[in-house]
Amino acid sequence: MSESATSERTMRERVEEYVFRLQDEIVSAFEKLDPTAPSFKRDSWIRAQGGSGRSCVFACPPQSTSYPSGISTPASESNVNLATEREIVLEKGGVNVSVVHGLLPPAAIKQMRADHNSMPLPERQEGLPFFAAGLSLVIHPRNPHAPTVHANYRYFEITEPITQEEGSDDAPKKQGKVLAWWFGGGSDLTPSYLYEEDAIHFHKTISDACAPHGSDLYPTFKKWCDEYFYIPHRHETRGIGGIFFDDLNSGPHARFPNSTNRPSTPDEIFAFVQSVGNSFVPSYIPILAIRHTALYIEHERRWQLLRRGRYVEFNLVYDRGTKFGLMTPGARIESILMSLPETARWEYMSEMGTEEGTEEERLMKVLKMPKEWI
Amino acid sequence: MSESATSERTMRERVEEYVFRLQDEIVSAFEKLDPTAPSFKRDSWIRAQGGSGRSCVFACPPQSTSYPSGISTPASESNVNLATEREIVLEKGGVNVSVVHGLLPPAAIKQMRADHNSMPLPERQEGLPFFAAGLSLVIHPRNPHAPTVHANYRYFEITEPITQEEGSDDAPKKQGKVLAWWFGGGSDLTPSYLYEEDAIHFHKTISDACAPHGSDLYPTFKKWCDEYFYIPHRHETRGIGGIFFDDLNSGPHARFPNSTNRPSTPDEIFAFVQSVGNSFVPSYIPILAIRHTALYIEHERRWQLLRRGRYVEFNLVYDRGTKFGLMTPGARIESILMSLPETARWEYMSEMGTEEGTEEERLMKVLKMPKEWI
Repeated sequence: MSESATSERTMRERVEEYVFRLQDEIVSAFEKLDPTAPSFKRDSWIRAQGGSGRSCVFACPPQSTSYPSGISTPASESNVNLATEREIVLEKGGVNVSVVHGLLPPAAIKQMRADHNSMPLPERQEGLPFFAAGLSLVIHPRNPHAPTVHANYRYFEITEPITQEEGSDDAPKKQGKVLAWWFGGGSDLTPSYLYEEDAIHFHKTISDACAPHGSDLYPTFKKWCDEYFYIPHRHETRGIGGIFFDDLNSGPHARFPNSTNRPSTPDEIFAFVQSVGNSFVPSYIPILAIRHTALYIEHERRWQLLRRGRYVEFNLVYDRGTKFGLMTPGARIESILMSLPETARWEYMSEMGTEEGTEEERLMKVLKMPKEWI
Repeated sequence: MSESATSERTMRERVEEYVFRLQDEIVSAFEKLDPTAPSFKRDSWIRAQGGSGRSCVFACPPQSTSYPSGISTPASESNVNLATEREIVLEKGGVNVSVVHGLLPPAAIKQMRADHNSMPLPERQEGLPFFAAGLSLVIHPRNPHAPTVHANYRYFEITEPITQEEGSDDAPKKQGKVLAWWFGGGSDLTPSYLYEEDAIHFHKTISDACAPHGSDLYPTFKKWCDEYFYIPHRHETRGIGGIFFDDLNSGPHARFPNSTNRPSTPDEIFAFVQSVGNSFVPSYIPILAIRHTALYIEHERRWQLLRRGRYVEFNLVYDRGTKFGLMTPGARIESILMSLPETARWEYMSEMGTEEGTEEERLMKVLKMPKEWI
């Protein structure tokens, strides 16, 4: 497509192109960091009800000491153990793109109206056409000193239904008038051990990406992130935050009651989303590059797995996207639950994290009381 | 207390005594099976809002190869590794009793009415007094050939509020008139590898305990169990079933629309609950006694941990008790989440369980299509 045509392209086309490009860039960055590890597994899929996607997933071979054993491995199996000489950087990770469309039933419209005030009323019994494009990623490194990271960038549209004629085979890309649209996303860091310089670097990189688009963006979305990634039954946040935003469009926004200092046209908002999307690699890869080589002991691995248990608790009990996905008939479960760690651990009344003066307790203090990093 | 006084005791006193006695019996049975393992940790607690309980929890020392490691243990730590010579039978387990009372807010009453048709209307703004006594257990053995088991036996009461005078210090045990009451419970087995003889023994023992109390009980509660322990997003049951029952009282029951062949007085229902409670040890311990010595390879351990991931998914996403507990302010989170396994595993698009002719696939077939075992 020539450059001059760009301005005529629809937002859905531009977002689709962007998320696939970002996916390539992110996956390449991880593969470059650990060139001798197995590549991410690329896996394109088509949704029967409309749309398609591409999963890029990293998984360690199960033989590489990646799970507990009660007995020693028979000699014939232990030959495939790869991780003793040099450890693989990632334990599990996925960078997924999905671009889907279909009819949103009235019940789903009704539910989404709670978080999206531009959503039309669910008047038509047969529902309304929707379009959703997004990139979603979760990376769980092996080393307990390297933090888990999550990011998501998404665009959503509700349109008027198109008539049979308009929607004929000659014009498969034709779409009805856009009734509602918004962008959402963000990224956040979940360390098992707190390195303040990592937290500062992560937040600073994202804040710098937000700044040209409005001075209120980072503080507003940082606060929203701390609120969203909170585990009520543990009275702690999932991690040390980042940014979270949703429902960004040209209309009024609950988080910006009085501010006009924010992107509000579709082009301005998309430029902001690209800016934070592009900041993902520089916000995280330098941290991983340093921490993945740290020496660690089993005590630290144990704590990492306990923290992964909390990650599972948040994702299965509270995360909106996961809950919505699990309830959606025909949803791709493997993609939805890709966010879960390879291994998680639960101990009854564990003393880890409670003993004063320990590194584990130092992290817990920050999770109990979110901090301003910059 | 003398025998002659038994008939004058209230149901809550009788249930309380029973669940504590059953707890002792069950914990003793596990400790007798593995006398050199650490004992269950007894932990009595008091609930600020009213009531108390006793947790009996088993946890392997974390040093005993019970979690994955990316690097080898430093020599100074590996001396405490106990499990290399003879493996400990259990990996994690809890047998908990709680006897609690307090005021049930109108919102909670309203929610409980969905499953309990004898529940009074939430008319009083300040709520209604409730009493709940129960035993709840989950046992996760170490050996992949030994199944996980869960059981629960509980009694619930809603009473009229008592006046200040009646509830004075002189008569602390006084209670208002019972407005509604019911028993619930059951037990179910979750193997990683299917041994048909184990499934038959488990179901037969429970069925025999049900039979004297009504011929419809086992078939009705077996079906209910398969329905309850179902993971919709996986299209599979959590395990190979057992029995599940709830809302048993003298009134009409949705699962017995036409049958009178069931216990219906408080004494009859309590006798039934004791009968199935007493059947727990003979239904499960003989299975564990055989399977815990099986030789296994890492492939089988890996499958066990994947199945534990499904256990976590069911408990956090669907289990009524867990969800209710997580939403209850002041609930004892450690007791609620005691049911989670020590370690669980998730793989993206795992081939395990899908390959025809394997033992893993043989289990999956039964989880996709529950079977009549007796």
